[in-house]
Amino acid sequence: MRLSQYFLPVLRDVPKEAEIISHRLMLRAGMVRQQASGLYSWLPLGYKVLIKVQKIVEEEQNRSGAIQLLMPTIQSADLWRESGRYDAYGKEMLRIQDRHERDFLYGPTNEEMITDIFRTYVKSYKDLPLNLYHIQWKFRDEIRPRFGTMRSREFLMKDAYSFDLDKESAVRAYHRMFVAYLRTYARMGLTAIPMRADTGPIGGDLSHEFIVLADTGESEVFCHKDLLDKPIPAPDTDFRGDLSPIINDWTSQYAATEEMVDMAAYESAVPPDKRVTARGIEVGHIFYFGTKYSEPMKATVTGPDGKEITVHMGSYGIGPTRLVPAIIEASHDDDGIIWPVSVAPFEAVLINLKAGDAECTAACDSLYDELNANGIDMLYDDRDQGAGGKFATADLIGIPYQVILGPRGLKSGEVEIKHRRSGERETLPVGDAAKRIKALIEPQRRTDI
Amino acid sequence: MRLSQYFLPVLRDVPKEAEIISHRLMLRAGMVRQQASGLYSWLPLGYKVLIKVQKIVEEEQNRSGAIQLLMPTIQSADLWRESGRYDAYGKEMLRIQDRHERDFLYGPTNEEMITDIFRTYVKSYKDLPLNLYHIQWKFRDEIRPRFGTMRSREFLMKDAYSFDLDKESAVRAYHRMFVAYLRTYARMGLTAIPMRADTGPIGGDLSHEFIVLADTGESEVFCHKDLLDKPIPAPDTDFRGDLSPIINDWTSQYAATEEMVDMAAYESAVPPDKRVTARGIEVGHIFYFGTKYSEPMKATVTGPDGKEITVHMGSYGIGPTRLVPAIIEASHDDDGIIWPVSVAPFEAVLINLKAGDAECTAACDSLYDELNANGIDMLYDDRDQGAGGKFATADLIGIPYQVILGPRGLKSGEVEIKHRRSGERETLPVGDAAKRIKALIEPQRRTDI
Repeated sequence: MRLSQYFLPVLRDVPKEAEIISHRLMLRAGMVRQQASGLYSWLPLGYKVLIKVQKIVEEEQNRSGAIQLLMPTIQSADLWRESGRYDAYGKEMLRIQDRHERDFLYGPTNEEMITDIFRTYVKSYKDLPLNLYHIQWKFRDEIRPRFGTMRSREFLMKDAYSFDLDKESAVRAYHRMFVAYLRTYARMGLTAIPMRADTGPIGGDLSHEFIVLADTGESEVFCHKDLLDKPIPAPDTDFRGDLSPIINDWTSQYAATEEMVDMAAYESAVPPDKRVTARGIEVGHIFYFGTKYSEPMKATVTGPDGKEITVHMGSYGIGPTRLVPAIIEASHDDDGIIWPVSVAPFEAVLINLKAGDAECTAACDSLYDELNANGIDMLYDDRDQGAGGKFATADLIGIPYQVILGPRGLKSGEVEIKHRRSGERETLPVGDAAKRIKALIEPQRRTDI
Repeated sequence: MRLSQYFLPVLRDVPKEAEIISHRLMLRAGMVRQQASGLYSWLPLGYKVLIKVQKIVEEEQNRSGAIQLLMPTIQSADLWRESGRYDAYGKEMLRIQDRHERDFLYGPTNEEMITDIFRTYVKSYKDLPLNLYHIQWKFRDEIRPRFGTMRSREFLMKDAYSFDLDKESAVRAYHRMFVAYLRTYARMGLTAIPMRADTGPIGGDLSHEFIVLADTGESEVFCHKDLLDKPIPAPDTDFRGDLSPIINDWTSQYAATEEMVDMAAYESAVPPDKRVTARGIEVGHIFYFGTKYSEPMKATVTGPDGKEITVHMGSYGIGPTRLVPAIIEASHDDDGIIWPVSVAPFEAVLINLKAGDAECTAACDSLYDELNANGIDMLYDDRDQGAGGKFATADLIGIPYQVILGPRGLKSGEVEIKHRRSGERETLPVGDAAKRIKALIEPQRRTDI
């Protein structure tokens, strides 16, 4: 993408309303724009990151055996009356009347609707296990939305719902999501730690939050240090097999949010040199809640013996619009964002140091074509502007590699590559640049970790 | 995808509420489910088609130079008060109050919001031309939603918005979208004819609808027969060059909807043997409306001479949730849907005629692996059920090719391939099946037409 033809409204000033670094950087880098309190447009750069995040979520959901569909944003109030949540849900639910004065709502979550779909079509134990998910916009009318898209009113969420014959197989479904989540975060370059959690308004008796450590985290967390670099389950993990050894390994070491922590248990379980007390950001939440919705909504199947069985359910949420700022909180410096390659809006940026110079521009154009031909997702700063501003923008928007070419380099036939994360610079022949960038980027795409 | 692990709730009976064939087939094939009047869930099979349609729309928008972003579904009423449309828009607008009793609405379209984004960031003539688009859920509170997702209340729309310095360059932007639309429909296997149209509530003085001919079309159309097989602009069309020869070619022959037709002009322009009078479905609508929004909303840029210029705009809509039924209306038979390969939920289905037979199943499993390894998007009917039901399902859901293998074929080492569209059948060695399917499918993917 040529920057001269792109829409990248970078801001010079730090927006005053932004309280946390990810919100400031997303505004400054032209990733999002607030349209009203808690309502954001995702501008082209931000949208590209959001889509890459969403794609990783989808790939790992699909790998685990979950099946994607899509439910509407607007739901009938009657469904929520069946579960009893229409009245129980407070003012966070955006209630709507249509032109015929029928009651609707903008879905804050989809347990009721998916249960309704399930009971309509699934009649036999033979059709289980089943895990259905969608990635759809949700709305929660927060009284005071803040932190940008980290806690917006309209937000994108992947929510999966599992249906099983009994608790034992429902727990296996829960394990599959647990492993899918570990892989999802790792592919985005995040270290996320599963912690036992409260089930809250979703209900149930088994729940984990996945927490990314960051100074700006909303709550305090306590965990064993070894959890920070535990290996991630492999891509060829057999999701139809027994995953409990993996789950046991991940849950055997102490990890708890401030709501759940028992300080005495923490201190007895974790030696002092292994204790990590830090701030954390919740980036996912999984629940097993048994028959909480299937019972009132009569979601049953016929068992092998012909008897009706009320299905056991779980739900599993990840918010892509929250993951993007969480990644920034975990990966930035004073100059701006530092994207992991797997979610970077562009993998590399080619900087033409002198766009007014015909020879330099011809060399850059040809290098740009070569980088594109090598399958690198490229931004090309072809604007006729000073070098300083170009470097600042490239740093701010966090593209992992900068390929820098100007008249002086051209004379010696050399290009400079700057590694955004380490600051390291290397000089190499122009003809080797594409091969080098490809070699740097490919292992970091993390499609196969 | 193994059908035994998929969620494909095919219906035996024809749903009574469905008035048109696409709606009946989408319900029977388990593609969608009505959640409330005019609100649909896209079940896995339908969702896969929707995504393939959306991807083609995106690719052709991007090819034409439009840039993707994403605006929220919920919009502030204040924006619409600026343009004057908040009061002008009738009951089709879903009006909402949040917990603080502020007025919002579920966006039926986005002219106001995109103009607001534009005026916030774009200040100079140097940043033009610009075309921004998004694909987002919209809501129009139709008094009587019907025809399934063809006219639903919540619907997915790609809407692009162009910004230019003057009418002349705005018309060039209009031409780019015109060509992008022609390519978009052709890649989906649709013959869509551009027709001059009324601008309606969007405003402006230049507008075309793109109409697909189908017996169930909502309105009558009149056009020259030669438009039905006019060649589509090539993928390497220079979108930065002059597209008016292409536009002139496509608009020089008579084509009009019943709202716009002048029968005398039609009959004088088109010889009797070239007259096509038919029913049509609108699958896209493009508008040039000048300064209708930029004027009241003060969307201006500084010109080369330092003077403020009010920008000229256009908007361009395509609805993926309407395209899916339109494709079905244009391509089905008594047995069900006939998907063009480019938008088929699966490109081929492998039918195991005897899933209870270990040898047959082993051969099918291995053929399935081979077809997957060849990059074919496969459905595998591995269920332990009778052959008749499997054939009926494969026909109903419209997968372009059926690969049929049973114990008898296995004995002679042969597999049967059924072409869904022509009904043609061919028998060939099992070892040649993957190569043959690949050869059949690749040219029909239409990525490069």
